[in-house]
Amino acid sequence: MKTLSENACFGGTQGVYSHPSKECSCDMTFGLFLPQEASDGPVPLLWYLSGLTCTHENAMTKAGAQAWAAEAGIAVVFPDTSPRGEGVADDPAYDLGQGAGFYVDATQAPWQPHFRMWSYLSNELGTLLERNFAIDADRQSITGHSMGGHGALTLAMGLPGRFRSVSAFAPICNPSASDWGQSQLTAYLGADQSAWAGHDASLMMRDLGFDGPVLIDTGTKDQFVDLLMPETLAQAMAARRQTGSFRMQPGYDHSYFFVQTFIEEHIAFHAEALWA
Amino acid sequence: MKTLSENACFGGTQGVYSHPSKECSCDMTFGLFLPQEASDGPVPLLWYLSGLTCTHENAMTKAGAQAWAAEAGIAVVFPDTSPRGEGVADDPAYDLGQGAGFYVDATQAPWQPHFRMWSYLSNELGTLLERNFAIDADRQSITGHSMGGHGALTLAMGLPGRFRSVSAFAPICNPSASDWGQSQLTAYLGADQSAWAGHDASLMMRDLGFDGPVLIDTGTKDQFVDLLMPETLAQAMAARRQTGSFRMQPGYDHSYFFVQTFIEEHIAFHAEALWA
Repeated sequence: MKTLSENACFGGTQGVYSHPSKECSCDMTFGLFLPQEASDGPVPLLWYLSGLTCTHENAMTKAGAQAWAAEAGIAVVFPDTSPRGEGVADDPAYDLGQGAGFYVDATQAPWQPHFRMWSYLSNELGTLLERNFAIDADRQSITGHSMGGHGALTLAMGLPGRFRSVSAFAPICNPSASDWGQSQLTAYLGADQSAWAGHDASLMMRDLGFDGPVLIDTGTKDQFVDLLMPETLAQAMAARRQTGSFRMQPGYDHSYFFVQTFIEEHIAFHAEALWA
Repeated sequence: MKTLSENACFGGTQGVYSHPSKECSCDMTFGLFLPQEASDGPVPLLWYLSGLTCTHENAMTKAGAQAWAAEAGIAVVFPDTSPRGEGVADDPAYDLGQGAGFYVDATQAPWQPHFRMWSYLSNELGTLLERNFAIDADRQSITGHSMGGHGALTLAMGLPGRFRSVSAFAPICNPSASDWGQSQLTAYLGADQSAWAGHDASLMMRDLGFDGPVLIDTGTKDQFVDLLMPETLAQAMAARRQTGSFRMQPGYDHSYFFVQTFIEEHIAFHAEALWA
């Protein structure tokens, strides 16, 4: 693991690190905020998964999470959204290939050798963090924005017991039925939709649910809301009697101005579950 | 109008009054909490509509609303749930007739002469309150529980501009499709379902929406949740991109213990809209 940068931040440290990833067969970069409390012992960990076109850096610099994570004494990890590099497959579209991993393990060419974000996040990166930083592996929660909201919800429901709470900002809710999902899941997982079910938050909510609280925020003026399909997840959450809050926030769009407005409430929500 | 009782309460007054109702052709009783500020001039008004079997009294004594209404400087009116008295039609079932008006104007025998709760609430009682108490008619919001949540949502959407915000505790969300609704709407409005559309919160949310914020709470252990059908309203709210929060509260049932747990948040929610 290489340290690319470390900056003092709200009494703790905002670091950026890279490491050779076995799962993705390339070097992967991530951001990690550690609060001051991490110098005394392990602290809880919040995962923040980012959206289409993002690297580890966007949310780290624009979401405003560190102020509230410092207050709550919680670490936040900002992974990248896909494998990257010259030997890694890509596509000219902004929503496929590098920067658009969709948090799945690809089974189809040309993506299969590197695009293993599900396994990278669920196994490799967590283990790396626990070994190298003061992280309390028993206290983890997860959030994300847009494609990262999709990732947060599907990882939370797909790995029961791993995360204590899950939230999302403007998540892609029903990729099996959306232009933000159908072409990517076909490319990565193949045309057989039975392979998609474990990567669709609405279907997983219908069939599995989440053993903990759920918080979803989406802006009423989100320019991509028809692609996000919040109504499908809202229906599934209520039909399952899932503990949670589904909120439509008046006037907000899809940007980091939206995320930074509600990040305090999301971190407080996770802190309550993480410190319980 | 007759004063049946007045009690000092959180620095204001909890009163109970009765009056001959022109709409319902019988005497109607209601509770009204006025905060201390009402002695200096008109205050905003929150309507609280109650559920099946309730009179004006249940929520007035068990919801715990007065503490927070006093803090917010807001009046709360607790109407009855139906016309009552010897000359008024009734049914042995707990969910039809007296105590079960469903907030409609009945068009069918034997209900039509008295069961005019929609008009009673939307016209007569409001006018009476404005004339007799220090109520600011330009600042009104509405909430309710169960059948009263249905009433709050349908009145709010059916009377655009009248209410600034609407909330509900465990509302009947889709009476057209539920055993809590189909038999009553048939009895009161007839079998032609086109007459029901203006009295179904999910259909009204789909077709009309609400020009203001919406807050819905339902318990995950609500013993009547299958009759309430929260999933239909949750879907409709998100599909409409309706500003609002739809929450499923872990472990809570249908009782006033549930209502009193969240009444503070509901009154704060309405206060924000009423004082804006």
